[in-house]
Amino acid sequence: VCKYCLLHTLALLILWHRLISQTAAKIDVDFDYDGPLMKTEVPGPRSRELMKQLNGIQNADAVHFFCNYQESRGNYLVDVDGNRMLDLYSQISSIPIGYNHPSLMKLLQQPQNLSTFVNRPALGILPPENFAEKLKESLLSVAPKGLQQVITMSCGSCSNENAFKAIFMWYRFIDISCCLATTHSKAIHKLDIPSFDWPIAPFPRLKYPLEEFVKENQQEEARCLEEVEDLIVKYRKKKKIVAGIIIEPIQSEGGDNHASDKFFRKLRDITRKHGCAFLVDEVQTGGGCTGKFWAHEHWGLDDPADVVTFSKKMMTGGFFHKEEFRPNGPYRIFNTWLGDPSKNLMLAEVINVIKREDLLNNATHAGKALLAGLLDLQARYPHLISRVRGRGTFCSFDTPDDTTRNKLIAIARNKGVVLGGCGDRSIRFRPTLIFKDHHAHLFLNIFSDILADFK
Amino acid sequence: VCKYCLLHTLALLILWHRLISQTAAKIDVDFDYDGPLMKTEVPGPRSRELMKQLNGIQNADAVHFFCNYQESRGNYLVDVDGNRMLDLYSQISSIPIGYNHPSLMKLLQQPQNLSTFVNRPALGILPPENFAEKLKESLLSVAPKGLQQVITMSCGSCSNENAFKAIFMWYRFIDISCCLATTHSKAIHKLDIPSFDWPIAPFPRLKYPLEEFVKENQQEEARCLEEVEDLIVKYRKKKKIVAGIIIEPIQSEGGDNHASDKFFRKLRDITRKHGCAFLVDEVQTGGGCTGKFWAHEHWGLDDPADVVTFSKKMMTGGFFHKEEFRPNGPYRIFNTWLGDPSKNLMLAEVINVIKREDLLNNATHAGKALLAGLLDLQARYPHLISRVRGRGTFCSFDTPDDTTRNKLIAIARNKGVVLGGCGDRSIRFRPTLIFKDHHAHLFLNIFSDILADFK
Repeated sequence: VCKYCLLHTLALLILWHRLISQTAAKIDVDFDYDGPLMKTEVPGPRSRELMKQLNGIQNADAVHFFCNYQESRGNYLVDVDGNRMLDLYSQISSIPIGYNHPSLMKLLQQPQNLSTFVNRPALGILPPENFAEKLKESLLSVAPKGLQQVITMSCGSCSNENAFKAIFMWYRFIDISCCLATTHSKAIHKLDIPSFDWPIAPFPRLKYPLEEFVKENQQEEARCLEEVEDLIVKYRKKKKIVAGIIIEPIQSEGGDNHASDKFFRKLRDITRKHGCAFLVDEVQTGGGCTGKFWAHEHWGLDDPADVVTFSKKMMTGGFFHKEEFRPNGPYRIFNTWLGDPSKNLMLAEVINVIKREDLLNNATHAGKALLAGLLDLQARYPHLISRVRGRGTFCSFDTPDDTTRNKLIAIARNKGVVLGGCGDRSIRFRPTLIFKDHHAHLFLNIFSDILADFK
Repeated sequence: VCKYCLLHTLALLILWHRLISQTAAKIDVDFDYDGPLMKTEVPGPRSRELMKQLNGIQNADAVHFFCNYQESRGNYLVDVDGNRMLDLYSQISSIPIGYNHPSLMKLLQQPQNLSTFVNRPALGILPPENFAEKLKESLLSVAPKGLQQVITMSCGSCSNENAFKAIFMWYRFIDISCCLATTHSKAIHKLDIPSFDWPIAPFPRLKYPLEEFVKENQQEEARCLEEVEDLIVKYRKKKKIVAGIIIEPIQSEGGDNHASDKFFRKLRDITRKHGCAFLVDEVQTGGGCTGKFWAHEHWGLDDPADVVTFSKKMMTGGFFHKEEFRPNGPYRIFNTWLGDPSKNLMLAEVINVIKREDLLNNATHAGKALLAGLLDLQARYPHLISRVRGRGTFCSFDTPDDTTRNKLIAIARNKGVVLGGCGDRSIRFRPTLIFKDHHAHLFLNIFSDILADFK
């Protein structure tokens, strides 16, 4: 479905490189570079050589290029051919405060922290002395409203799976339980894989900008909410009780689909009416990029969720949950590692930086600059850009089709900007939290040129 | 089922502490201590205080005690009350070369390695320059026979799940596929959780020592093999084709059940006869503790497996597989992180140490000392110890019941030895690879006293 990666091979055919003029230096070079600097096409010769090597060991078709992480700084990702690119994708939204942030480098240089990186414990049975303290300093200092319990996991999929477990245990139905998934990942992940008979409701498909299509969008949201209730009832008749509903505040892999705050408030009401748990999957939206630490805070609810999963920018996976979802005994939610204290240590520092540098407000501000610029480009190039949407820096737009989208991503990369795709024709922005207004303008200038030249 | 953890509360009632006399120093204290040193009962007052704290955040009933990882060295785990214990459980078999190994400490102090710890990439799309090189230096340098492809994952359960995916994709059956699991984790993990209709065959229940019960054991293994074939046929009639068989070389959580090399060779034949994939789960047995790098090497097969999963001592999760199990396109086996290069970096160094210090032969040697000692204790205390078994240091024995087992573990801990339980009445040994003969003797002396005094 999502074949934007295939464009690499096309990109290889265009032997083309360009030196982007440097914009005025805004930040110390130790922390961030002052602009892209391109030396070869991307992927360059060294990347291509390494791709061939890696492909001998595993399928490397998804690889964009190889990186020099030591030389990368702030918002700039440097590749193995010496190209320096403004990174608006940040490792699928997972680098919170930029590459090689000085605060994290310092943390690693402190001798007392070494043992945390070297000795990975079985957290569930033999936690380190500062385990609860670090959880309080990091995760619990940003806990979603009403969710004061937290369990860490090693990755995003483990986080969601164990959250499902917690919900099933809370529901206490064996065999007849089922879970309502409204999430929609790349279909290719699921092909050939057996899965449960879990109902999947449609995520609203809205028109943007939202304020111009209020009535249509309300109808579309009402339709989706109705279908959620219908599915709950239909499955109950099949003797499959819906134990919980899982949803992303912005449906990400499925194409960056937004819904109104009202939609989520009504969905929350449905979960209450039918006694299902409400699991908000903030793996991609969490960590501050929408301008609030959690995207669900925008809904303005006092009781927004029963369970919230996270990963990516949080550096560790895991989930917050209400007291009543707490496993009623040891080993019920368990694996050997249950996360990694070295990630908690880094997360505590990341959260310090977010607070100290007011990065949530920065995301709102820089996101506005980015969105305004995208709306302007949409007005100028409506045949190339449509459905501009976003919250904070979590922005995206649609292109006419898959081919155009992939071509735009490849051209942008060769001009020094890393973008990501999602859904079947969208381009998504997932910059770090230190992405500032001037980075937005830098991108918009480059992309404006690309659109002007696009054939 | 496995309630040995409950004993902590009992242990609290026995206010008892003892200073173990130090044995002769054998190794530099920077690297390993020379014996246990007990200051309080375990868990001590500081651990109990921290348990209370942690229990406010998450269910902490499984916590044994809190650790001071900075002060731990080699085979010795130091707790927050200053107790120093010989660790024969090594974080559920996941610390390969002991705590704070100097080689790993040095690795972390090298400035050029810092960025690997600070910038966690999305490995599937933007790998670091040395990704393939580090895979070759680490995982591929110990690849199982015939399995030259490898995919990394963040943890053990992700490794098995993605290996299942790879098998289903190889089989290309949708909906009618199923997988034959002979593994048996703690039943409490599974309670209340919906699961697939996958057939589970019994793991042979043998009598030990194996050489004394050859005939009975052959019969038991024949019975189990027959049941495997029966299940394959029975499920085929239900239109559920068995796509693969998963087995552990030593069934670990299920109670350290061994089977003969012949059993596994015959099981391998069954997979060939019925066209199923053979997945060997080496999450717990892999990494050298059985005296060979992979436990399946003991079977003496040229084609031992189609897929081998790993985690724990390998520091990263993942799986090796044959070329034909390679995903046929990008994003088919995919998630954001796909492991962690900082773990690959450490694993490469761990494997260097294993080779340099001949730690596989050490595991065989120290394992023999341990097993001989256990057999001796079994002869002297048959009412307490039975079914002594082991391969390398991967040893275990049975106790009369759950209560006795848990009591023995608690007493041993208070005498400075950390042991683990498995199954419903077994005690398992999972020391590090730097566990030497003298550590075995030290343990055996302490445990012999415990058995002599046991009431």
